[in-house]
Amino acid sequence: MSFNIKFNSSEEKYIQIYRYIKEIIENGMLPYLSKLPSTREMSNIIKVSRSTVLRAYNMLEDENLLFTVKGKGTFVAKVEIDENKDWTINWCDRLNIYAKKAEEMDIIKKEKTYKKGMISFKSIAPNEKLFDIEELKRGFLNLISLEGGKILNYGYAKGYKPFLLFLKEYMEQKGVDLKNKDILVTNGFTEAFDIILSTITKPKDNILCENPTHNTAIKLMKLHNLNIIGVPMNKDGMEVKELKKTLEKKQIKISYLIPSYHNPTGIVMSYERRREIYEILKSYKVPIIEDGFNEELQHLGGHISPIATISGEENSVIYLGSLSKILFPGIRIGWICADKKLISVMESVKRSRNIHTSSLDQGILYEYMRNGSFNKYLKKIKISYREKYELALKLAKKYIPNQYIWGDGGLYIFVKLKGVNSRELLDRCYKKGVIFMPGDVFFTDGKGEDTFRLAFSRTTLLNLEKGMKIIGKEIKKL
Amino acid sequence: MSFNIKFNSSEEKYIQIYRYIKEIIENGMLPYLSKLPSTREMSNIIKVSRSTVLRAYNMLEDENLLFTVKGKGTFVAKVEIDENKDWTINWCDRLNIYAKKAEEMDIIKKEKTYKKGMISFKSIAPNEKLFDIEELKRGFLNLISLEGGKILNYGYAKGYKPFLLFLKEYMEQKGVDLKNKDILVTNGFTEAFDIILSTITKPKDNILCENPTHNTAIKLMKLHNLNIIGVPMNKDGMEVKELKKTLEKKQIKISYLIPSYHNPTGIVMSYERRREIYEILKSYKVPIIEDGFNEELQHLGGHISPIATISGEENSVIYLGSLSKILFPGIRIGWICADKKLISVMESVKRSRNIHTSSLDQGILYEYMRNGSFNKYLKKIKISYREKYELALKLAKKYIPNQYIWGDGGLYIFVKLKGVNSRELLDRCYKKGVIFMPGDVFFTDGKGEDTFRLAFSRTTLLNLEKGMKIIGKEIKKL
Repeated sequence: MSFNIKFNSSEEKYIQIYRYIKEIIENGMLPYLSKLPSTREMSNIIKVSRSTVLRAYNMLEDENLLFTVKGKGTFVAKVEIDENKDWTINWCDRLNIYAKKAEEMDIIKKEKTYKKGMISFKSIAPNEKLFDIEELKRGFLNLISLEGGKILNYGYAKGYKPFLLFLKEYMEQKGVDLKNKDILVTNGFTEAFDIILSTITKPKDNILCENPTHNTAIKLMKLHNLNIIGVPMNKDGMEVKELKKTLEKKQIKISYLIPSYHNPTGIVMSYERRREIYEILKSYKVPIIEDGFNEELQHLGGHISPIATISGEENSVIYLGSLSKILFPGIRIGWICADKKLISVMESVKRSRNIHTSSLDQGILYEYMRNGSFNKYLKKIKISYREKYELALKLAKKYIPNQYIWGDGGLYIFVKLKGVNSRELLDRCYKKGVIFMPGDVFFTDGKGEDTFRLAFSRTTLLNLEKGMKIIGKEIKKL
Repeated sequence: MSFNIKFNSSEEKYIQIYRYIKEIIENGMLPYLSKLPSTREMSNIIKVSRSTVLRAYNMLEDENLLFTVKGKGTFVAKVEIDENKDWTINWCDRLNIYAKKAEEMDIIKKEKTYKKGMISFKSIAPNEKLFDIEELKRGFLNLISLEGGKILNYGYAKGYKPFLLFLKEYMEQKGVDLKNKDILVTNGFTEAFDIILSTITKPKDNILCENPTHNTAIKLMKLHNLNIIGVPMNKDGMEVKELKKTLEKKQIKISYLIPSYHNPTGIVMSYERRREIYEILKSYKVPIIEDGFNEELQHLGGHISPIATISGEENSVIYLGSLSKILFPGIRIGWICADKKLISVMESVKRSRNIHTSSLDQGILYEYMRNGSFNKYLKKIKISYREKYELALKLAKKYIPNQYIWGDGGLYIFVKLKGVNSRELLDRCYKKGVIFMPGDVFFTDGKGEDTFRLAFSRTTLLNLEKGMKIIGKEIKKL
């Protein structure tokens, strides 16, 4: 046994020696009858006076952890700890801050959960009943007959090559200039956003976003210790005046925007507003992380160009693509389209995290998307979701007393109540079998306590009315 | 335009003002003919003396960035920067240290790559020709007919439930006591190891491992800024004496061990050695991350219990399971089996990273593993790999002059040369169409320059001999 005590200056040395020896005895590292160095020896080993050692030994003897036999030395006494007892680690004591924060902000664990039979306005997952399973099977079998075992062996960190090529064409169809740009396939939006933040941000950097914004994005920005600067919104998107004011005052490292079916408000930013915000951010040299979330679902009119298109040949926009609210979220496929050099570095980050995204899943999605069935599927779900959206909006306006209701389509609307706390409302509704997402989880500044998000992607038309009525009734009681 | 200069103490203030204004002019944020605050105004705004401002303004005038009109004020001159020019970001300037390190240590980018037609001893990927594709198809179709679209919608962060239950039984078959333990499914070993380090380590923590060890593990330990303490090995595994010496000297946070087919040495630690090392680590209260890598491949005899089994009811071992060197690495499935509470926290970390691992892939692997075909497959590949291993060992001993060759089976052997630099050797062999992995990438202390790993999972029997002859010949020339 070596005794290497590192003394600190905040406590007397004899106390520190006492604690140190007590701990190693109680940990079983100095078993019963072990002989301790004499006070003289110990004072040499740990470079303190002999009287300091003596004082510590005396304390340990007083506690019956040591005993002294005259002429023989000082020995470890039989301590209560059973030496045969299994060693149990208290892992909670060993968690770092990051892990503690990840658990603390895990809304799946913290928020009320859906129970069978409830009317749920909580989830924004797509309606799996709309998936074209036969087409998926066909795609899988086609892929396997073409690729054989190769698709099941190690692939490339950037992505499955045919899928990468497909995505490049897909981005070009959106009008994105791909000169000096490249694509990295990720495990959905969440990994894409995490990789971007892991690559270009440092703790305390200012990141600008809409307020409210996607709660998973908030969680990740917090886990990266970023300083979140939320810019308020009106019904057309981020407020331009407020954006300018913020940029005047603060040095912003990067911005994060959700132009289409913004989560949680459902707002689709017009082309003009996208252009304006892009130009303002450009004049302050603030790059943009554009969340292409649900862009494929623009079911109220023509497709509005993403900001990645507006920026043309420039390399200031990092576009995140994901189909997870439309198609097969269970296979976790997303992608980043950005500056070539930046993608190359993020490819290394991706490789260090999990080598690559499942080639099988990329292959299946590729097979599904590359023929006409994806467009057919999109048409089908646009009609279905639009119908629900229109009904949901109508019913919400009818039954729910509100200050305003936002949302231009998509899978949810956003309700601002008149002075009613949405968590109190949720408590009541939950008892009546209705669940939704309280708005405060989307706010960067702890506000939004009188708002909530009403999602309807998987709610039946019948339950839509039933649920809204219950919410309306409970509001009136409050 | 607001002027908020944050002064540092390392440079004169007028220089800092000069730089600040120069930058905003050159960035186009103060366009041509913008009027600057007078020196008096500016000195009030930024709280410096008027003469300091004057000095900065004079420097800017000297550079023709500003000009002064008497009685009117100081204005921005026409600067060369074309205002219509696209804004180009130099992303390389914006990378953080983590991303730079991830790219720097990305051996896929740094090491010599396989070219078609070469004899490769580099890759340790499984031989895809051995995969049972028909069984995979059957599993997929079965899964889809059972689960329908549900398997393609969002799943659980911990894993696909039937697969989790299966893995629990699977771990129990290995003799692991699952009381108060749980399982988390991950995207392969790499993500599992990254999540563990992300959850319980802090920068500068000491982590103990075998030296040499798995190069991806080294990369991740370095990316987490851990202090890697490598303990030397002999042909039976980690040297016990050295382990004890290290534990005497250093406070170790956690250890990382590969007991079966250790990468890169191929050593399988005996039951007795596992037990001994476990007991020593236990006496120093050092938890173990056990890499269950290729455990399924123990083709030279009976299955040796993992350390997770030896530890019994205790919760000190975090076991990492992965089949990636055996079955379908392209679908990226691994798992962590550990203390229940710890798994619960890591579940939140996993959710924050990418929500969950592809449910489709988990379902497919589950279908493949749960019936007899997995065991049939294992039998088949054990015979195939064993045959190759025996031949490889024989040929290596015959053709390659060495100090020693390690490896008890599996997919590779490890060669220690007699004073020959393995990178020089690789340079020569590469020109002759032979590639292997130089050993230095596996060492924690930059050593191993006279070693290399010879992997043969996908090398044909014919090429095995041809390749070894070439390596032997080139050694003799050196």
